[in-house]
Amino acid sequence: MDNNDKLVEKLIQRNNANIVLLVMDGLGDIPNKDFGRKTPLEYAITPNLDKLAKESALGRHIPVLPGITPGSGPGHLGLFGYDPLEYEIGRGMLEAAGMDMDIKDGDVAARCNFASADENGVITDRRAGRIPTEKCVEICEILSNNIKTVDGVEVIIRPGMQHRFVVMFRGENLCDKLTDSDPLMEGKEPLDVEPLTENANFTAEIVNKFFREARKVIKDLKPANSLLMRGFSAKPRIPSMCDRFGLNTVCIAHYPMYRGLSKFVGMNVLDAGNTPEDAFNVYTDNCSKYDFLFIHIKYTDSFGEDGNFQGKVKTIEAVDKALPILLEKKPNVLCITGDHSTPAAMKGHSWHPVPVMIHSDFCGFDDASRFTENDCNKGSLGMFQSKYLINYLLANAMKLSKFGA
Amino acid sequence: MDNNDKLVEKLIQRNNANIVLLVMDGLGDIPNKDFGRKTPLEYAITPNLDKLAKESALGRHIPVLPGITPGSGPGHLGLFGYDPLEYEIGRGMLEAAGMDMDIKDGDVAARCNFASADENGVITDRRAGRIPTEKCVEICEILSNNIKTVDGVEVIIRPGMQHRFVVMFRGENLCDKLTDSDPLMEGKEPLDVEPLTENANFTAEIVNKFFREARKVIKDLKPANSLLMRGFSAKPRIPSMCDRFGLNTVCIAHYPMYRGLSKFVGMNVLDAGNTPEDAFNVYTDNCSKYDFLFIHIKYTDSFGEDGNFQGKVKTIEAVDKALPILLEKKPNVLCITGDHSTPAAMKGHSWHPVPVMIHSDFCGFDDASRFTENDCNKGSLGMFQSKYLINYLLANAMKLSKFGA
Repeated sequence: MDNNDKLVEKLIQRNNANIVLLVMDGLGDIPNKDFGRKTPLEYAITPNLDKLAKESALGRHIPVLPGITPGSGPGHLGLFGYDPLEYEIGRGMLEAAGMDMDIKDGDVAARCNFASADENGVITDRRAGRIPTEKCVEICEILSNNIKTVDGVEVIIRPGMQHRFVVMFRGENLCDKLTDSDPLMEGKEPLDVEPLTENANFTAEIVNKFFREARKVIKDLKPANSLLMRGFSAKPRIPSMCDRFGLNTVCIAHYPMYRGLSKFVGMNVLDAGNTPEDAFNVYTDNCSKYDFLFIHIKYTDSFGEDGNFQGKVKTIEAVDKALPILLEKKPNVLCITGDHSTPAAMKGHSWHPVPVMIHSDFCGFDDASRFTENDCNKGSLGMFQSKYLINYLLANAMKLSKFGA
Repeated sequence: MDNNDKLVEKLIQRNNANIVLLVMDGLGDIPNKDFGRKTPLEYAITPNLDKLAKESALGRHIPVLPGITPGSGPGHLGLFGYDPLEYEIGRGMLEAAGMDMDIKDGDVAARCNFASADENGVITDRRAGRIPTEKCVEICEILSNNIKTVDGVEVIIRPGMQHRFVVMFRGENLCDKLTDSDPLMEGKEPLDVEPLTENANFTAEIVNKFFREARKVIKDLKPANSLLMRGFSAKPRIPSMCDRFGLNTVCIAHYPMYRGLSKFVGMNVLDAGNTPEDAFNVYTDNCSKYDFLFIHIKYTDSFGEDGNFQGKVKTIEAVDKALPILLEKKPNVLCITGDHSTPAAMKGHSWHPVPVMIHSDFCGFDDASRFTENDCNKGSLGMFQSKYLINYLLANAMKLSKFGA
């Protein structure tokens, strides 16, 4: 826990003000030469965001450290006020939490694929032809019925979308310091899971035994006759936002991973539905019950990852169009930002700082005319690490007392 | 001591250049809808500051950490190059120092009020009807004559303005980790002072004995027949600016607290008089004797605290008008800034970053047309923690050598 964490926790004063954190995943971008040298935020027609920008404090935040491209976990932990270098959440645990699995201290989870293998066990399709989700459910049930424990360690299997599923191991002395079994390419056999520390020897043994037993159970179920495991991770030890900041928090998200992530910081979870309107209506129905409401919009990132500039633009425009639903309830503090940048031209996450605006009665405002990367560059929040965003949100909600006489 | 402190102290090279740090207390603000959506700096007519801004490096600084609202102590420590999270000065000690009390290592001081109490000792007025200062002087003298020591611990009593005074305890093994006796409301008796650590048991006993004895002495002196104590604090251990930076420093301030604060970092102290002209004339008379001159202007903050936008504007204009007096002497480095923001609309200190400009032969300059929050947002100093201001001041004075070959 660094000085900032200690200080903020000491200065917290509770009140009834509420904070809305609207995250458009992967929002930040870079100007695109195919679209008039504009970023999606610049290209999009956004009358509501423009109006808000004129009454907000703007800036850009850096998810981890300058030049570092974050995954979704670190990106969101930063937004929630956690140093992503101090708190890490493994991919397996993220998936498990996103599936609403009941997670206990000491559990170790892996993110798994059903895969296709030839008669020698060599992987011929890492995704088993993307079997339909119903098929995945069926095979997971077969596995669950056949393998309940391995050497006394409980095994919990949960189907995901298509070929994806999660295996969670529950028992004494488990450790997540393990290599993946997924060779990340076809034409190879699944790898033995190797312990990365001595503590993990026992868990590696259990996991490898599980693999062999599972292979036996499904080996005739082509195309899903093998499995790959990666992202072994234990339940992270993270103090809740309630304990740290006295906030009654809720996550409104459609995608499992973001709901899962939010649970690790103690958030309640509501399904956002599929569109910005849906999400904002869920907000409207629930805003009186919470004082920190995190709303997650996924498609800005998805289109960014696909290199679909216009899809990203349309998602931003859809958020803008629905924004009045959210504004109707007059949140005391409204912050609009992303968890990281996903430039369409790069088809992936990037290190570019994320545009952010904060609106409240006390935010002040800059001479911005729109909510764009360039306007944010000139804003009064300047450039800051994402982990400090929570300070600004709490300050604008008057939830932080003065430091020192 | 962090890396920056160590580095700066290592790179110091003495020369004859002088640095003027002109602090308009609480200078930063937010645009005010009642005054054309302008901040006081934007609203004020400031030809001299404007001219200087065009020849200066601009930026904004963050007193403690993003979103944290500082008191005057942390705000000024930052300006002087001290991390306010590393060095804390208690309110009692600040007051004592501001009264020119001679402070020794190990002393513990409290900020006190005379108060009115009924026959049961219950407080009926926490400020004893704001008795005139002469009355306060008189009662302090009575107390001093009657209580010189408590169980061998020396007691030093010094009157302040109106109902305010300071009690300082001097002896072996004193500790300032004590709760306040001030219940912060009327209708209650003064609280027993409680030790917050075992080390403070003895001091708590002494302080509580002092209270009972003092009550006996003044109990017939209505309306000032009781007393309240808060902000117990020991003399902070802070290395001087002379030791750290090789600077011969002076504080030119009218208000006791700022003179007191400056003494803790080893500054000499001069009375600034009541107006900017007065302060700048004191500067003119003394500038050849020092190489770091801190000039403090209080009323920007006072008007901010009162919510008096136009008062704050007038103070800024008065500083602007008097500025030629200061410029006449051509200080090598002139920095104009605040210790924190005090937005008039908020009637109190805030977390908003503080506008700053630095003028020297080597400062460079930005495309600013005025010294305003918005111009500072776009300046070449960017957004930085206040504790780094000293680096820029020393650098512009050519008092820092190159790091590394």
